[in-house]
Amino acid sequence: MRTAGEATRERILAAAKAEFARHGVAGARINRIAEAARASKDRLYAYFDSKETLFDAVITQWIAETTEQTALRGDDLPGYAGRLFDDYVAHPENARLQKWADLEVREQIADDARILTLRPKIAEIRRGQQEGFVDPSWNAGELLLVITDIALSLATARGGRKQAGAKSGERTVAQRRQATVEAVRRLIGTPAAAEAPGRE
Amino acid sequence: MRTAGEATRERILAAAKAEFARHGVAGARINRIAEAARASKDRLYAYFDSKETLFDAVITQWIAETTEQTALRGDDLPGYAGRLFDDYVAHPENARLQKWADLEVREQIADDARILTLRPKIAEIRRGQQEGFVDPSWNAGELLLVITDIALSLATARGGRKQAGAKSGERTVAQRRQATVEAVRRLIGTPAAAEAPGRE
Repeated sequence: MRTAGEATRERILAAAKAEFARHGVAGARINRIAEAARASKDRLYAYFDSKETLFDAVITQWIAETTEQTALRGDDLPGYAGRLFDDYVAHPENARLQKWADLEVREQIADDARILTLRPKIAEIRRGQQEGFVDPSWNAGELLLVITDIALSLATARGGRKQAGAKSGERTVAQRRQATVEAVRRLIGTPAAAEAPGRE
Repeated sequence: MRTAGEATRERILAAAKAEFARHGVAGARINRIAEAARASKDRLYAYFDSKETLFDAVITQWIAETTEQTALRGDDLPGYAGRLFDDYVAHPENARLQKWADLEVREQIADDARILTLRPKIAEIRRGQQEGFVDPSWNAGELLLVITDIALSLATARGGRKQAGAKSGERTVAQRRQATVEAVRRLIGTPAAAEAPGRE
């Protein structure tokens, strides 16, 4: 059972996520977060001693949730890309958080959380390379970056970036998801490479 | 010959670009821009009536310059990706502007400039598709987005996103450029598809 304190902390985190997604770190206002969470500013600062600490906690929670929901496997990176696409479509605020984090996060903040979740993902990709599912010439960390950005890019193509061609507005979510999965399938190597290691 | 007015306008644009790249639109301060450009605020507002108008002008100028320098051709998208990578490496402020624009630009602002430069790029990609250099199953606008984001992602991988694996810091710029070009080569179809349409 959750205590009242835990419930308050969760409300603060949820309100902070919405505020940071909308305004970024510099633009976020602690007053608005406290109000949306029905908590006093003093209470908020008892849990999180600064706006940066709060952002860090939001990012850490988001990364942990997304990592669990998308379940990267080295033998199925196209499937992972599809699930990541779904996550960005279902939670557009995650796409914005990703971009704010790239722009505003100073060298160290939130890096610990990222490295902790990135390491097993990179290890999974290396396993996929060793087992013949992914071209071994890829740097695993760079491939992970590229997959993340393709999913992010195509998941948000219709909303914030409809300028990418008059026709992109007509593309369905399913078509853009298919393009994401297919792009990753091509990047990692031909299906023949994965399914028939003994080809040619 | 440039008039004094044109020189002032150029100084304001250069100072604004640096300020927007660092702080985004919400975080940018007109005072700092005017000071860095050695212009009065009144003078600045005579050229650009609001911070948003100034951001729009910066984006418009940057897109025009990058478009000219990177010269997208439908029969050589990997080469374009390499030049775009070089541009982001040489001008990290462009990479940040790209992300701020995604986050902060409202529906219409700067869209006109983007559409004007995107249309011929998309037409070039379609020409590449018709001529057999690019898989015709791609939506041309989405392919352009994906190429842009791969170049952006790998060009900035070492600076802001070194968390992507302990080894990424050891990768050279040349290696990351090679990965960018190779990724795009794979995405658009095999070299055989481009060079020998009659294969198999």
